Amino acid sequence: MDVIDIIVTKRDGGELTPGQIDWVIDAYTHGAIAEEQMAALNMAIVWRGMTRAEVSRWTEAMLCSGERLDFTDLPRSTTDKHSTGGVGDKITLPLTPTVAACGAAVPQLSGRGLGHTGGTLDKLESIPGWRAELSPVEMRRTLTEVGGVICAAGTGLAPADRKLYALRDVTGTVESIPLIASSIMSKKLAEGTGALVLDVKVGSGAFMKDTASARELARTMVDIGTDNGVRTVALLTAMDTPLGKQIGNALEVAEALEVLSGGGPEDIVELTVRLAREMLAAADLPDAKDPGEALRDGSAMDAWRRMVRAQGGDPDAPLPVAAEQREILAPTSGTLTRLDAYAVGMAAWRLGAGRARKEDRVSAGAGVTLHAKPGEQVRVGQPLFTLHTDDPDRFERAAETLADAFDINGDGERLPLVIDRIC
Amino acid sequence: MDVIDIIVTKRDGGELTPGQIDWVIDAYTHGAIAEEQMAALNMAIVWRGMTRAEVSRWTEAMLCSGERLDFTDLPRSTTDKHSTGGVGDKITLPLTPTVAACGAAVPQLSGRGLGHTGGTLDKLESIPGWRAELSPVEMRRTLTEVGGVICAAGTGLAPADRKLYALRDVTGTVESIPLIASSIMSKKLAEGTGALVLDVKVGSGAFMKDTASARELARTMVDIGTDNGVRTVALLTAMDTPLGKQIGNALEVAEALEVLSGGGPEDIVELTVRLAREMLAAADLPDAKDPGEALRDGSAMDAWRRMVRAQGGDPDAPLPVAAEQREILAPTSGTLTRLDAYAVGMAAWRLGAGRARKEDRVSAGAGVTLHAKPGEQVRVGQPLFTLHTDDPDRFERAAETLADAFDINGDGERLPLVIDRIC
Repeated sequence: MDVIDIIVTKRDGGELTPGQIDWVIDAYTHGAIAEEQMAALNMAIVWRGMTRAEVSRWTEAMLCSGERLDFTDLPRSTTDKHSTGGVGDKITLPLTPTVAACGAAVPQLSGRGLGHTGGTLDKLESIPGWRAELSPVEMRRTLTEVGGVICAAGTGLAPADRKLYALRDVTGTVESIPLIASSIMSKKLAEGTGALVLDVKVGSGAFMKDTASARELARTMVDIGTDNGVRTVALLTAMDTPLGKQIGNALEVAEALEVLSGGGPEDIVELTVRLAREMLAAADLPDAKDPGEALRDGSAMDAWRRMVRAQGGDPDAPLPVAAEQREILAPTSGTLTRLDAYAVGMAAWRLGAGRARKEDRVSAGAGVTLHAKPGEQVRVGQPLFTLHTDDPDRFERAAETLADAFDINGDGERLPLVIDRIC
Repeated sequence: MDVIDIIVTKRDGGELTPGQIDWVIDAYTHGAIAEEQMAALNMAIVWRGMTRAEVSRWTEAMLCSGERLDFTDLPRSTTDKHSTGGVGDKITLPLTPTVAACGAAVPQLSGRGLGHTGGTLDKLESIPGWRAELSPVEMRRTLTEVGGVICAAGTGLAPADRKLYALRDVTGTVESIPLIASSIMSKKLAEGTGALVLDVKVGSGAFMKDTASARELARTMVDIGTDNGVRTVALLTAMDTPLGKQIGNALEVAEALEVLSGGGPEDIVELTVRLAREMLAAADLPDAKDPGEALRDGSAMDAWRRMVRAQGGDPDAPLPVAAEQREILAPTSGTLTRLDAYAVGMAAWRLGAGRARKEDRVSAGAGVTLHAKPGEQVRVGQPLFTLHTDDPDRFERAAETLADAFDINGDGERLPLVIDRIC
């Protein structure tokens, strides 16, 4: 095999063979292909795309670069969810124990990421004592005994993807649907789930800003999952405005607890229940308890408490609170017609909820609380946002970011929460 | 400046600013941009191309990465030629002394290359004693006293191009008209010529197989030269069949000597005279001696002999001859209607005239002699080719390559020797 032939084939719009794909991923992972050669191939893929056969094989080759967990011997069917990420998206927190309470097993391997807030693991780490790193034995035990586990993906899963992602990050080759789809799916398939529901976000606060590209990403990931033997379905959901009313790390854990107590914002409850039903259906459990019932009868909360305890956390300990708060008041009365997800995310990030670099720590207490959501009435002088930070010097830029983030009595159009379903 | 911004701008079809181009070339030359980042940018350029302003600035930035020779104080006007290369293209050998004999100065800095035969320097090195490496002082003295010099380009000229070309070579990014044009032109402009004639080859034995892409390359190079203050003109010339009747290193020197003696194949004489006239016109020397006259009256041969001696060579020493010869006979009688340049070049390469790797040495004597050119009559059993090699094991594969290289009594169409002129 000659890597230049492979680059030139893709550059000229040709299709790579399964043998070429297997070789290129293996050789790159082991250092037999130089970074500059893989960078050129990546840019050619950004340019020319990949066929369904290519992207499925590319994903499989990355999957085969490391270990693939196997839970087929568990007494419960496994099912998982992956979200492409958005502002206020804490759905994994109530969803995992809810689906566990309904009878499936959820092996949720998560990351930290570079979003506006921390990732799922950062959010959970605001619970005193909770730890993300589990040994394979601990993970399997929690999954068996509790039915759900949210923990850090070991470095043994899809190492090719880790190396490739670091390269794409510095070479302007992140924005490619086949490369994004194969990166996500290689990690999710490696965690050994039997069924997978994808929540592909659309809107200003999402990676995909428009429905067409979100639909293409969803279609590509569903095809990859199906081709690799995992029952996969995707929902396209709205990310034009934040999910729920809390954006931060501990703030989002607190909101998840409201939902698990049978309350919480309508959009979080609706999306949790909808995704849970999809996960149970994909796991082929038609007789499972309804997720809405699990939230109402306390069984989802019980599962949550067992999950937190199994990972060293104290579910009754108070959550961290930021040192300083400041309110932003409504400048006029009327209907809140627009509340931009991206701007709210940026404000949370400026308050300390997210990272600038991989090595940074996130602030557990920082973030933004929304006092009204689009469609709701506000009165002049009423608080619109509460900003939380450990560093009061951060208030000003966050407030500036929010100044243009909303309209009162505008003519904003909103996306439906669930836009489409792709299977 | 952020290199990822620059990559993404080009990836998305935008135009790079002069400041971005200057920075990226300088930072890459000094190692501040990683090879993988430049590889991704190169592939984005292969994809999106460059505007005239971009490619002229890109060339200028590579030119400015090193020294630029200056011959404006010479008593003669400088003028040079560059060919994109082809099979049997020894035109530089008779052309340089011819133009020198007509009153211009020709600072011809050449390379070795990876073609079917060696480059111009390899060919000249078959002359006993001749050396390609001259100090700047020797080069200037030869140019002043003889009017022509053919020597190795020092490593101080366009070092950015050298680094970039090595990267393109291993990343499948050679085939891009703006990258090819800027690579050639940065080196030619660095040699300090005041006028430049480009011989852009078209056909099976050339890098550009079709007239449209050759025309685009010629147009791009002429624009770069003009934008950088050098009077530049290009001819598109035929490379469907070899130039002349000798393909090799010493073989081509011998054919150049025939031309300088007032004989030699018609196509070599015609192209030498045509290019010499273009070079003199570009140098604004309308009253110069006619190049045809310089070939006939011995003044071109005198200049050749002085050039060879100035670089340590003995113009009277016998040229090396390959250890073994073999003839291939015409299988039938009739008109030779096709003789494929690429196949003849491959045969010469297989006989040892060219290199497989940069480190390889070429055989001085190896190559192919043609006994008939397209349009000429051949008789069954008459020699069609003589193969020359130091290693008789090489005959068989060379002969196989030539078996399909020609047609007798076919209906082949030939390109005119000079297809177009671009200025």
